[in-house]
Amino acid sequence: MYRTHTCGELNLQHTGTGVTLSGWVQRSRDHGGLTFIDLRDRYGITQLVFDLETDAALCREARKLGREYVIQAVGVVRERSNKNPRMSTGDIEIDVKSLNLLNASILPPFTIDDETDGGEELRMKFRYLDLRRNVMRKNMELRHRMAVEIRKYLDNQDFIEIETPDMIKSTPEGARDFVVPSRMNPGEFYALPQSPQIFKQLLMVAGYDKYFQIVKCFRDEDLRSDRQPEFTQVDCELSFAGQEDVLNTFEGLAKHLFLKIKNISFNGPFPRITFKDAMDRYGTDKPDIRFGMEITEITDHTRGRGFPVFDNSEFVGAICAENCATFTRKQTDQLTEFVKKPQIGAGGLVYLKYNKDETIKSSVDKFYDEPALRKWIQVAGARPGDLILILSGERVPTQEALSELRLELGRQLKLFNDEDFAPLWVVDFPLFEWDEDTGRFYAKHHPFTSPRHEDIPLLDTDPAAVCANAYDLVINGVEIGGGSVRIHDKNLQKKMFEKLGFTDEQADQQFGFLMEAFRYGAPPHAGVAFGFDRWVAVFAGCQSIRDVIAFPKNNSGRDLMIDSPSPLTAEQLKELRLKTDGP
Amino acid sequence: MYRTHTCGELNLQHTGTGVTLSGWVQRSRDHGGLTFIDLRDRYGITQLVFDLETDAALCREARKLGREYVIQAVGVVRERSNKNPRMSTGDIEIDVKSLNLLNASILPPFTIDDETDGGEELRMKFRYLDLRRNVMRKNMELRHRMAVEIRKYLDNQDFIEIETPDMIKSTPEGARDFVVPSRMNPGEFYALPQSPQIFKQLLMVAGYDKYFQIVKCFRDEDLRSDRQPEFTQVDCELSFAGQEDVLNTFEGLAKHLFLKIKNISFNGPFPRITFKDAMDRYGTDKPDIRFGMEITEITDHTRGRGFPVFDNSEFVGAICAENCATFTRKQTDQLTEFVKKPQIGAGGLVYLKYNKDETIKSSVDKFYDEPALRKWIQVAGARPGDLILILSGERVPTQEALSELRLELGRQLKLFNDEDFAPLWVVDFPLFEWDEDTGRFYAKHHPFTSPRHEDIPLLDTDPAAVCANAYDLVINGVEIGGGSVRIHDKNLQKKMFEKLGFTDEQADQQFGFLMEAFRYGAPPHAGVAFGFDRWVAVFAGCQSIRDVIAFPKNNSGRDLMIDSPSPLTAEQLKELRLKTDGP
Repeated sequence: MYRTHTCGELNLQHTGTGVTLSGWVQRSRDHGGLTFIDLRDRYGITQLVFDLETDAALCREARKLGREYVIQAVGVVRERSNKNPRMSTGDIEIDVKSLNLLNASILPPFTIDDETDGGEELRMKFRYLDLRRNVMRKNMELRHRMAVEIRKYLDNQDFIEIETPDMIKSTPEGARDFVVPSRMNPGEFYALPQSPQIFKQLLMVAGYDKYFQIVKCFRDEDLRSDRQPEFTQVDCELSFAGQEDVLNTFEGLAKHLFLKIKNISFNGPFPRITFKDAMDRYGTDKPDIRFGMEITEITDHTRGRGFPVFDNSEFVGAICAENCATFTRKQTDQLTEFVKKPQIGAGGLVYLKYNKDETIKSSVDKFYDEPALRKWIQVAGARPGDLILILSGERVPTQEALSELRLELGRQLKLFNDEDFAPLWVVDFPLFEWDEDTGRFYAKHHPFTSPRHEDIPLLDTDPAAVCANAYDLVINGVEIGGGSVRIHDKNLQKKMFEKLGFTDEQADQQFGFLMEAFRYGAPPHAGVAFGFDRWVAVFAGCQSIRDVIAFPKNNSGRDLMIDSPSPLTAEQLKELRLKTDGP
Repeated sequence: MYRTHTCGELNLQHTGTGVTLSGWVQRSRDHGGLTFIDLRDRYGITQLVFDLETDAALCREARKLGREYVIQAVGVVRERSNKNPRMSTGDIEIDVKSLNLLNASILPPFTIDDETDGGEELRMKFRYLDLRRNVMRKNMELRHRMAVEIRKYLDNQDFIEIETPDMIKSTPEGARDFVVPSRMNPGEFYALPQSPQIFKQLLMVAGYDKYFQIVKCFRDEDLRSDRQPEFTQVDCELSFAGQEDVLNTFEGLAKHLFLKIKNISFNGPFPRITFKDAMDRYGTDKPDIRFGMEITEITDHTRGRGFPVFDNSEFVGAICAENCATFTRKQTDQLTEFVKKPQIGAGGLVYLKYNKDETIKSSVDKFYDEPALRKWIQVAGARPGDLILILSGERVPTQEALSELRLELGRQLKLFNDEDFAPLWVVDFPLFEWDEDTGRFYAKHHPFTSPRHEDIPLLDTDPAAVCANAYDLVINGVEIGGGSVRIHDKNLQKKMFEKLGFTDEQADQQFGFLMEAFRYGAPPHAGVAFGFDRWVAVFAGCQSIRDVIAFPKNNSGRDLMIDSPSPLTAEQLKELRLKTDGP
């Protein structure tokens, strides 16, 4: 063994103990006749001291050590004269007696410190150095700890983790699959799973009534900051369970994680909100409810005053920013620029300042008299000093733009912080989504999602109004996971396929072996899947899931460290009987 | 919720309790006016009773239920008159008051019972039914329980589980990679990892001094009963640790699993045996030491008696089967047939019967007089009543054939049973393997494996004699895992590449980014990887790892249930810019 202790555990109790430490040189300082080295490992930092007077040769050796050199030091723990209360080992130092250089290091391309001078590209290329930084180490440890607690909770609830295959079958419906050519079966391909959905439903048919798996999934999509071609899911399914059982079980899981990881107790159940309410009140199906500033519809109070923008809008909605009536022209202009960005897409922003002295100033006061404006104030629930911001247009896009404006204001006004957590369930999602281009309904979740029992008659009369037994867990505006009760009744499934425009043949071709399995006694079942990377990122307070993945890929799906993907050899292509016309 | 209890938990304490159970109809029997149904779920079987006299309609309904129907039954727990002590619920039954058919089932293609009439192909095609069988369920539960205990042990030892990527870079050295074409980077491919070897070494460079991961790995090989294209590894690596630390840590893991899973305590350390001793004594580097019957070399005692087979053999070796001198001609003929099978490849078998009355009978007694044969008896340590079996030829193939013969005899003579476990470490593997075809040395483990310190001078003088700091864990003749101390010294690594015949350029091309990482302060490190499927199979007493994998592939790499791999659509191939000339 190269050490007797780690660099994170020694304190005054060890004074006088002979120890051997191994680690990396974080920093080295010379103070007159003394040389101090901060030695770092995964567990912390310990100060080594070399004295030129007592051992000149050793001290000179120490002075040659550069940053990130790997050394082994043998010495004795002693109390520091100059204690550092910010370090767990800050009360002691090691009086070094001998030194062993385990490996040298050339100069790292960026500073290995919490605040680094390395840009993202450089950090990705030298990820093994980036991962040495304390902030990254904490993220990796958090991720591990969360996986441990998830498994502990689910195992205690009799869930069994079962590995489903990674090399499965491509289904052209839905998002694009990554595929794997089969050498043994030329011309044929496996697909990497986008989720273990079908396998977990087969496990329910097989009688494994409480299944889970922390599992890699793969999706060949164009990438965004919260997307990676490979990502990790906490995948779960239960038999003989309905929506209420699923929500209770996994609310329990979320509370367990909050308590064990963040030391936060939630008393009482998480709020539940319907999809419709979420859209009406927050303009999104994943609301951040750490702060209010809810949307108020004022469409009816804006008609017929000769303001064509509002008169021609399906929807006029307002949010009320508390104590912001004092916003300057520059500030309201900036908000207007914000909502006009292409990602948000609003045409403009109307404001109403309800000043402290109860006077009113609005950008549309030449169209609306004071009683009309006072009506808006009343409906929006504004108080003197507040600023009302109004957008108009088609209902859903306008709600979504108001949601973005609300979040932007929340950030600017610091209405929430990263250490607050507001989880909720969004329920009663619509079963179908209408697609204008193809002129047909698509399953919002997937074709096996069960409609609410009371909505089944609507399948024939008003499909768009049918709600699904589907649910999402949202924390701080991030969709952490979602799921649904599945259809286990053959006739209902047949009707569902009809409504989705499948012929019997098409249904059989695409979902045949699952339908075949369902003929052998499929139990009622329901499930949920959580985006593990996202959940860790939310707990870590990171904006990008890349910061909680050890070796992520960039936005072109490229691993900059190992320089992958890369061309195959002619030999490999020949064995696979493949030709590629790539460059 | 569809149930108040599972089918495995009710007993006399629940007598009189109203319960709701859900599950599958395992079996149904009519006895006069009573109908009994065995209701099955993951947790057990509970007997339901319907009485024609008290509720004729309900009883008739029950009589319509077929095997594998899914039902919900509401009733009252009562004591059985005819108890079944072999079932945990055998003291009680449910007096059913109402019944709810949750789903019907068509007749399964094979019997869902421990002893099934389904052949392997049928069981694979309907794997979701095969997995309902008790034996398969126990295997899945064992697998889960072992993963739980592995994680618990390693987490307690400060190991951190870190997910390494599944889409990495193809390295044409070694076994074949499965590859994944990149749509975003046309003409380029990812590879699925054969192991996280390089990433775990990078994690050591990154300072994560105790890493593990239970992780899928992929290898495009021709398949055997203990191989699958995707398999699961328990992958581990430690920094600032040498061979002794690794062996102690993972012997601790193995003992933890034996205790928690099999309720077996091992006092004292596992035996350790060198590679050379393992070959000499057992003819294999993964000896089954549950029984003796070790190999004795008798080459020197067979020379010059005019028996050309032995005279021309590099090696003559014997095993001694206790109390088998009474074997009939038929039995020895069968053993001769066994060793002559092509997989074993011996030319023939020589025997020597050392009868109870101390007379001797041998198949070669016309070449060897009694004193010569008595010498063999003495060297082989035979006692009156024993049978000595002798093979000859080149050293290693003959040792290997003797190993197979030894195992066959062990099985026939029932010298071991599945519930005995004999773990050991095999150490001091050779660093290099000479390849006749290419006339060069290959790394037996991989090119980063460290030679034993004391053997470093031999690198120049006698490479074949250099032992590696490499080790395997073997249980009952199965290699459960193996690993090595890695080279962390640049100069030693350079020498290693030289000995393996790499130019600097080739070394750089194939291992460049790892070598680059090693320039930034690589710590001394060592690791191990266990074949999780194999370990579970050994604990389950299964011959094939297919029986401990939920959804395995067959010997052609095909998933018979989902019928994968399969052709892609023309659209998919076009998007990937691929052409295939498969049929």
